[in-house]
This record gives sequence, C-alpha cells and structure tokens, in this order.
Amino acid sequence: MLRSFVEVAPDSHFPIQNLPFGVFRPRAGGPGRVGVAIGDYVLDMAALEEAGHFRGTPLDGRAVFARPSLNALMALGRPAWRAARAVAAHLLDANEPALRDTPALREAALWPMGAVELLLPAEIGDYTDFYSSRFHASNVGAMFRGGENPLLPNWRHLPVGYHGRSSSIVLSGAAVRRPWGQLRPPDGGAPLFGPTRQLDFELELGFFVGPGNPLGEPVPIERAEEQIFGLVLVNDWSARDIQAWEYQPLGPFLAKNFCTTISPWVVTLDALEPFRVAGEPQEPEPLPYLRQQGPGAFDITLDVLIQSPTMADPARIARSNARHLYWSMAQQLAHHTVGGCNLRPGDLLASGTISGPERESRGCLLELAWRGTEPLTLPNGETRIWLEDGDLLTLTGWAQGDGYRVGFGEATGRVLPAQG
Amino acid sequence: MLRSFVEVAPDSHFPIQNLPFGVFRPRAGGPGRVGVAIGDYVLDMAALEEAGHFRGTPLDGRAVFARPSLNALMALGRPAWRAARAVAAHLLDANEPALRDTPALREAALWPMGAVELLLPAEIGDYTDFYSSRFHASNVGAMFRGGENPLLPNWRHLPVGYHGRSSSIVLSGAAVRRPWGQLRPPDGGAPLFGPTRQLDFELELGFFVGPGNPLGEPVPIERAEEQIFGLVLVNDWSARDIQAWEYQPLGPFLAKNFCTTISPWVVTLDALEPFRVAGEPQEPEPLPYLRQQGPGAFDITLDVLIQSPTMADPARIARSNARHLYWSMAQQLAHHTVGGCNLRPGDLLASGTISGPERESRGCLLELAWRGTEPLTLPNGETRIWLEDGDLLTLTGWAQGDGYRVGFGEATGRVLPAQG
Repeated sequence: MLRSFVEVAPDSHFPIQNLPFGVFRPRAGGPGRVGVAIGDYVLDMAALEEAGHFRGTPLDGRAVFARPSLNALMALGRPAWRAARAVAAHLLDANEPALRDTPALREAALWPMGAVELLLPAEIGDYTDFYSSRFHASNVGAMFRGGENPLLPNWRHLPVGYHGRSSSIVLSGAAVRRPWGQLRPPDGGAPLFGPTRQLDFELELGFFVGPGNPLGEPVPIERAEEQIFGLVLVNDWSARDIQAWEYQPLGPFLAKNFCTTISPWVVTLDALEPFRVAGEPQEPEPLPYLRQQGPGAFDITLDVLIQSPTMADPARIARSNARHLYWSMAQQLAHHTVGGCNLRPGDLLASGTISGPERESRGCLLELAWRGTEPLTLPNGETRIWLEDGDLLTLTGWAQGDGYRVGFGEATGRVLPAQG
Repeated sequence: MLRSFVEVAPDSHFPIQNLPFGVFRPRAGGPGRVGVAIGDYVLDMAALEEAGHFRGTPLDGRAVFARPSLNALMALGRPAWRAARAVAAHLLDANEPALRDTPALREAALWPMGAVELLLPAEIGDYTDFYSSRFHASNVGAMFRGGENPLLPNWRHLPVGYHGRSSSIVLSGAAVRRPWGQLRPPDGGAPLFGPTRQLDFELELGFFVGPGNPLGEPVPIERAEEQIFGLVLVNDWSARDIQAWEYQPLGPFLAKNFCTTISPWVVTLDALEPFRVAGEPQEPEPLPYLRQQGPGAFDITLDVLIQSPTMADPARIARSNARHLYWSMAQQLAHHTVGGCNLRPGDLLASGTISGPERESRGCLLELAWRGTEPLTLPNGETRIWLEDGDLLTLTGWAQGDGYRVGFGEATGRVLPAQG
C-alpha cells in the first residue's frame, strides 16, 4: 500500500491516499498560501513551487500556490489539479528521497497543523444549495404536507435547488450567533419577533467548481465531473421558525443566510474515486440531459456530533452516508447550467441535507426529532429538539479504504446566544 | 440653476445635478477606471485623482478611481462618495475655470461617450432580489391563486426576497439567449424539455451596497441609507414556464439565473434626494425594526420599450414609477441584515418588478398580457404575450426636476434564439 514517510495514524483523515487541498497561513506570520494535508502536517505547495517541483507540469509558471485562495488552481482545470496532487504524492512517498532526505526543503515545506491557521479555501462567488436527498425531501414533505404524497411533482424530474448566500459562508470553528427574525405566528396572526426558537443544522456535502463555463454554454453531463474540483462538508445552519414564515413564494432567505459553515480541506474526486457507488435508483428515468453514465454517488460515512456545555465529550446524534443522495453532483451541475447559467472557479454547490432511510441517518434536527415530537436524549440526560445556546455541533465524514481513510476532517460551530 | 460648461441637452439623463458613477475603458485601449457621466461625456475620475484634485478630501491617497470597479469607492462610505461627487460637480460647474480653462486636463479627463466602452460598475458578490411592489405581488397572486386573497400572509409583514445569481449579471447591451429548461407540463404529467416559450422581462431598480456590515451585526433602519451607494435599472429576465415547474418549494432558480441586465451608471441617493416621496401606505404598521422615519420612496418614472426586428423604432409598452413600491430600500436593507447576514461593498439588492395600479404600469409581460389572456398590440400590428426572438427590450427611467432630468440611461437586451 502507498505510504508516506510522514507519520499518519491509521484513523487519520489525511493519509497519502487523500491529499486534500486547503489554504493556510503560518501562525507566526506570513501570507496565505495553498497547502495539502498529510497526517498532522500541511505540505506547503508554494514552497514546492519555489523549489521548482512543478517544472514540466501543467502548473509550470502558473504561480497558483502562493495565493490566499484555491481559485487560481481551480481555474486551471483537472489536468493541473491532477498534476498538483501527483507531485505532492510523489514527494510524500515513503520511498522517494527528494523531500524525505532534504532537511532544508522539509523545514520549508512541512508545517505541523498546530503551527498554521486554516483559511477559507476559496473566494466563493456564488453558492447554490440543492435538495437532493429523497429521504430528506420526503420526510420534510410528510411533516408539512402529510404522508401520502410527500414529494412535490417536480422533485423526481429535476434536482431542486436555489441560490444561497456567499458572504456568510465561514470556516469550521467560527461561532454561530443565534439570529433574530420574524417567527411564524402559532395562530395565523401577526408574526413574533425575536431570536429563533428552532435553530437547526443541516448535514451536507458541497463541491467547488472549476474552471466553469461561459454564460449561455451549458455543460453536458458527460463533461460535468471535469468541473468538480473537490468536496467539503457543509453545515447549512437553519432557523426553522423564520423559514416557515418567510419562504413562500420565493424560498428560504433569512432562515439560511445568517451562517453556513464549511470544512477547510477540499477532497478531490480523484481521492474519492475508489469509493464511487451507484446512487439511489432514479424512477422515472431522468430527461436525457440528466442521464448519467455509470455510478454517480460516493460511499462516504457522515456523522453529526453534539456537545453541550455540560458534556465532557461530543456524542453522535446521526450517521448518514452520501450514497443516499438521489441526484448526483454531475446531475446537479448539468442541471444548473442547462439554461446557460455560468459557473465560475470557486463557486460552491451543496447537496442539501443528506438523510438516509433509518431514523439515525436523518441529517437535521427537524427530522431527527420529527418537528419537535420525538426529542433526542443525549448521554448526560439532556434532551434536544432544536439546538441550544452553547451547543458545539460537529459534522465529520470519511470514506473507508482498506487500512486507510479518505476523510474530510470536521466542520464545527458553537451556538452563541442571540445578541442582547 | 446649477449648470455645467459641458453642453447638456435638456432631456439628457446626465446633467450636473446627476453625476452618476460608472466604470469605463477607452476604446483606443487602456485599463478600466471610474468615471462620472456628464451629458454626452465621461469625466475620468482617475485623471482627476492623478492631477491631485482629491487632496484634502476623504479620498486623498485612497487610489479608488484607477480601478476597473467601484467596489473600493463603495467600501469607503458615504462621506467619501459625497466628496467624490462634490469634486466632480465643482470642476464641471460653468463658473469654475480649473477644468474648463485647462485644455490639458480637459483632454485627459473628458471622454466623449462614443470613445469609451462602459463596463459592469461593480464586482457583485451577492445579488438579492426582493418582491416589494404590492401591485405586482397582488397581480401575480390573483393570477395564480385567485383574486380574493392575492397576497400571502407574510407579504405585508416583511419585504419578501430571495438570493439571485451574481455570475450571470450582465451590462446593458449584452444579448440574452433564450434558455432551455424543463417546462411545466400542461396536464400534470411529465415535464417538457425545450427552449422557454414564456420569456419575460421584469422592470426593477436595484441598489449597490457599501461599505457593508460585519457578520452578526444588523444594520438598524435609521442607518440603512448610509449603506446605499446608488441605484441602477435592473431587468430580471424570467422564463415563466420554467419558473412555474421548478419553484416549489425553494423558489426560482433556472427561471431567473440565465441572465440579469443592469444599466451602467449608478445614480447616487444624493442626486435622487429632491425626488423623495412617501411610498405606499403600510398597513399593518411594520415591526419596529422595519419602521422608517420619513418618506422612503422616490418619484422615478420607469418606461419599458420594445422593438421587434420589423419595427423602425422602439414602442413603449409600460410606464411605471418607483413611488409605487411598498417596501423601501432602507426597509429591505434592515430586513436583510436583521438576522446578522453580512453585506459587502458591491452587493446588489433589487426591488422586484415595479408595477403600479394602472394596466399600463404593470412591470412585466406576465401582468401586461395577464398570463397570455390579453395580448399586447404593437404599433406595427404585431402582438405579444411573451418576448420573441429578435425583440430588443429597453428599460429606462428618470426623475423629472425643474428643467433637468436625473436619469438612469438604459438597460437594453436583444433576445437571441435558443441554442441549436
């Protein structure tokens, strides 16, 4: 098995089989730059570039690593992404001496995770959120419209999605302030105004786009995966009582735009390739522009953990899997562009809440506690139907290989009380 | 009356009372930079900066004009915006010799409109579209839900809005490609796939934000107008048959994101101040965070013109007015941020279709032809219920002063046939 000379714990999310891209800044000072995670270290791609390790590759002379975002790398396209990952894999290989046995280069290019600050991986131009889990859409439909016909007529024909807010996307670790807003009146009268009483998380994956397409030129589904740079965890924090009041007829707005958390390391499609599986069966067959050749889902275990201020450790409250998604990333991307909408490097397209068929695989509190009717009991006896102030919420996920994990790290956020 | 030494026709949109900001590039070559419109000329603010005309103002040393967008100027805030406009007004004044009588500076700083190419005025991070005309929302509600209770329960309590697509915002003059998409099946069966058959325009105004607010810190309504840099015309092109099929439950997506056209010149709130009027009466009184002191609407005449390929001249098909808006810009901005959502310099917030009480003041074809049941007849005998290939659609608008017009110029687009 491929192995790195950098020590990697067996349950690490970042073995040499992964090599996700991110952006970091040394805590001691210095500009932001592109890195690759390996075990508990960050490989400094700008340092490798400076040392000439991209000569003769599609990255030669492009200067895409000494920058505080991945956008320039994303713009170059998949051959360049592959070259970058291949150079990193080669230099980190246990049998390759070029980095291993060159102390000066190791000193310059390998940073302990604790010595760096991770930054948002991209400047996100547009953020789109889909609604691609049938289990999630059915559960929500059953709760709000009754159980007989929980899916709306369009749901099986197209990947329903909407535009989200880019400005309020934050990196894992940022606190989340409970938002104020207009809350649905219980009796159909005037709305209440106050901090949301129904703060929720949503367990999602998102993918970054590159290089994008010109306005008016759709991306055919056969070529859609060429546009997928890599994936991150996404927590689409939601205020359900704000959402219930505001969302007709134009969709969620303030219920979602107060904060969205993403994980810092962008896991490439190449790293996930061994975990490709068939997604949920699609019936009826989609229109030709949405027909995917071959399997389009990925077997990625996704966990949600919560830690209240009185809990010593986080406790798992949900385990789902990306294989439960009905609409694939390629289908989302082909649909997004079929009318000519242009995507740009750094655009983020998220899956929507990823729920599975079991109760434990529901991807948000709305479903887990079934609209407040089935409270969750935590290990210390506390119960939850919605998030409470002080709760630390963690999303994590990984694909399990034979003796290694291709992981996403974490997307965490602690709930702060509403402003006074 | 204030008058410029630059000749300005009486019906010009750009007298010295206006002085809107834009971004241009000389057709002969050279980088993009900030300009101000005066009659048929563009005043080159970067040239004024280079000549030292902003010394001693809040713009001193900020270098915000020699840039291909207004974002840096927007970020400085209203005192800087006022200083920029005051310097331009001073130098353009008929009684002021500094520019008038300095041929070298005139040569460097005054460009005939025909010698420049106008560019998108800002890098637009996030684009939000509201739904703030009661006449429009009532008309749409009456058409789709019946006439007895055309407004949804939330509409009079909050400015309904949603996030739009930034990447596909284009400048006036760009052609608009008829999009393909899934169209609502007439009989409730499977959707059709093809070019939209119900292509529409939407007559809107939008405003650019600066300097913005940090995440988690709402902008109180009393301070909202300090955040409004200026206004442009917005045509939110729409595909009604795509919209009708896709929009439940998360709102419009592909029906709107194929193209949005804006006008190039950003008209400041200061220029519009003489035209401030009370908006539509608000009943019930809004919640305290939405209560505006004083009038919040503006008396801006808004025209829509169409020219088919066989017409010699454009013909007006609608005349509306921004005073018909129910929710003001300050209310939109206060609402947008009340849950903590951060706005950034260059964000665009649009009004939604601006319809008035009369038939002629309806701001889109959906309303003008009442969902296809009342075709419009054009001067050459053609009829329209939706836009046809080759149609040139023009939005224009102005506030009428005593002997001058504070105008917006135009937002135009010609419909191209769907791709082949």
